[in-house]
Amino acid sequence: MIVVTGSELVRGERTDLNGPFLAREALRLGLEPARIAIVGDEPEELEAVLRAALEEGDAVLTSGGLGPTHDDRTVELVAKALGVRLHVDAELAAQIEGVSRAAAQRLKRDYGDFAPGVTKQATVPDGARSLGLAGTAPGLLIPRDGGRIIVVLPGPPSELQRLWPSAVETDEFRSLLAHTQPPGRRVLRLFGVSESAVARALAEAGGDGDGVEVTICARDFEIHVDLVVQPGAEVRADALEAAFVPQLEQWLYGRDERGVEEHVLELCRVRGLRLATAESCTGGLVAARLTSVPGSSDVVLGGVVAYANGVKEAELGVPAELIAAHGAVSAEVAAGMARGARERLGADVAVAVTGIAGPDGGSAEKPVGLVYLHAEGPDGGVGREFSFPGDRASIRARSVVGALHLVRRLLTQSPDSSV
Amino acid sequence: MIVVTGSELVRGERTDLNGPFLAREALRLGLEPARIAIVGDEPEELEAVLRAALEEGDAVLTSGGLGPTHDDRTVELVAKALGVRLHVDAELAAQIEGVSRAAAQRLKRDYGDFAPGVTKQATVPDGARSLGLAGTAPGLLIPRDGGRIIVVLPGPPSELQRLWPSAVETDEFRSLLAHTQPPGRRVLRLFGVSESAVARALAEAGGDGDGVEVTICARDFEIHVDLVVQPGAEVRADALEAAFVPQLEQWLYGRDERGVEEHVLELCRVRGLRLATAESCTGGLVAARLTSVPGSSDVVLGGVVAYANGVKEAELGVPAELIAAHGAVSAEVAAGMARGARERLGADVAVAVTGIAGPDGGSAEKPVGLVYLHAEGPDGGVGREFSFPGDRASIRARSVVGALHLVRRLLTQSPDSSV
Repeated sequence: MIVVTGSELVRGERTDLNGPFLAREALRLGLEPARIAIVGDEPEELEAVLRAALEEGDAVLTSGGLGPTHDDRTVELVAKALGVRLHVDAELAAQIEGVSRAAAQRLKRDYGDFAPGVTKQATVPDGARSLGLAGTAPGLLIPRDGGRIIVVLPGPPSELQRLWPSAVETDEFRSLLAHTQPPGRRVLRLFGVSESAVARALAEAGGDGDGVEVTICARDFEIHVDLVVQPGAEVRADALEAAFVPQLEQWLYGRDERGVEEHVLELCRVRGLRLATAESCTGGLVAARLTSVPGSSDVVLGGVVAYANGVKEAELGVPAELIAAHGAVSAEVAAGMARGARERLGADVAVAVTGIAGPDGGSAEKPVGLVYLHAEGPDGGVGREFSFPGDRASIRARSVVGALHLVRRLLTQSPDSSV
Repeated sequence: MIVVTGSELVRGERTDLNGPFLAREALRLGLEPARIAIVGDEPEELEAVLRAALEEGDAVLTSGGLGPTHDDRTVELVAKALGVRLHVDAELAAQIEGVSRAAAQRLKRDYGDFAPGVTKQATVPDGARSLGLAGTAPGLLIPRDGGRIIVVLPGPPSELQRLWPSAVETDEFRSLLAHTQPPGRRVLRLFGVSESAVARALAEAGGDGDGVEVTICARDFEIHVDLVVQPGAEVRADALEAAFVPQLEQWLYGRDERGVEEHVLELCRVRGLRLATAESCTGGLVAARLTSVPGSSDVVLGGVVAYANGVKEAELGVPAELIAAHGAVSAEVAAGMARGARERLGADVAVAVTGIAGPDGGSAEKPVGLVYLHAEGPDGGVGREFSFPGDRASIRARSVVGALHLVRRLLTQSPDSSV
């Protein structure tokens, strides 16, 4: 069970990233996450959740509430829920003091500001093992009887992710993992098919069960199908796959976790193609998603965010007459933008998006959600029109996914087949 | 208490958006969210969480598990946890059938695929009231004794958000709210100050308590301070604010929920300034964040994602010699990019980012995390150098926030003061 604390998280002011991270990591190691509980820093509620967590699982993973401020109570409440005492760890205090003195000097501030926080952050439950510092917050591993463990990690996602490997490498964590057997995981990624058609194909193939659990999940325009295969159920999983995957072949684009942006980068890389983007309503999100991948600079040259018509004309060479004749949101302008980006940026492949993300700017003829995509490559181009439902963020997100899949199709299909 | 279901959520394959949405909405209405529980579709675990939720709060809000597929079990388990029977609602079945027949026709598929899902989705607990359909999934409100309620909503965030107002408008929900008194909420948004300095200022001002709860939260480079003020504690909150806000004045940029991108757009709008971006390592994220705001097109002209040096030269007019002399990641090139974007796109203000987001590409002289920002306006420009810790995503996120705050400062400070 994973316990995430933070008033701002339980109030919805911020989206939790640590629960999903810890869940993925636990699953990878063979620990099935039963529950992610998000609580504020109200002591009674946090203590109740910690007590429930301690009753349930072999491993309790917590994030947050380790800071120097008054509302950071995780360590104290873990000790209380476990019924153990707290003490100031002298070695830890010295380490935290070192970091704090350096910070005080760098920020040209008085160390006196930091001193109470140092003692607070060096106070740990009896029996706890330090996992090292991230900033001034120590991660802790607390062994329990029966080989069970509690791992206490800081709230900032980058700090939590940095300390996590230290937890997994402890003897206590390794002993726990010696008893687990990670389930197998098989992944199908589909685009352009409905959730119910996938569910029907699965049901006709015999459905899940008998050690194979199947999750079907629609995300933007994609369908993600995950098979979790218990040890011993591999033959059953093979049979299930053999029965239902062929029916879905035409929509299948991936058999692993990689996002469509990684497929696009790989398709370009193997053919030595350089890529550019031209975006209106997505405002840079297509380029941002492509460049979120480390090493994308060997494929992505860059792009133009052409929000204003003047930018479409000046930076992408879209003729003003074309915009006047068809409107900025049109198949013709999408094609012009893609061709312009390809020429101006010296790219082999370019993808363009123009649409009405709303909430304003729609009309009877061109309603909010109308989006034109165009991908242009060395052997010609392909365009698509979509009418996306949802709000501004959702229309933009779906446009990004649609645009990347259009490039993928352009690069995987032969030039004369339809897309 | 908020219960969010979905295997993909508890396994961390996807980040939950519904818990935060429902938490914010509940809080706004005066219902303090105690806990957000994320569970898979494993029936025993989901039932246990639902039972715990039913014991605790006045309102239980659930999301997910309403689909037509075999692993959607929320309605059935809510009924079981409540100890009430299920029945097929004929009116609901007719509505869902109508939607499904239309979908079958649009998708050119056999209605037979949909029929079992229709019956499944029209099966509801005795006493439930339909909140209307989102897609083929009905939202439900189930009254309990003592004026308590359960609201059952679909998993896709846009559908959940569309049905939510129907839940709030029911007589049962209104009666519940008649007994609540929403707490006041005051917000401070700061940039450029440390979390512990803010904590110290708060402590010196007397700290929270007595009906005023203060949360201090570091987010990227910003510090978000929230005061939750119980009815009757307004004078205490005024006194606390009067004591500690003046100490933080120089870092304070907002007294409301608006993000820095909204401040930048507003600052441009009142002065009639048009804005452009020039991005290398952030790859379009600055433009994407600015254009995430509805109506941003009256300020944002567009931008250039200049990932390759050739694009910095051709599209932004940065001299090749400047790049050769200082490197693409340098204060000089950042300034050149900003000036180039301003000229080429015909903008009044431009902001540029160039840096090393990693994990590769760093050197001893220019390590991963080194980022140069530059904002150029009608009265001159300002540049900043940062060394950001963290991974690629974190470095990019902090660069975006830093860049937007640099524009904000450029536009709020007099031309001759230092930034």
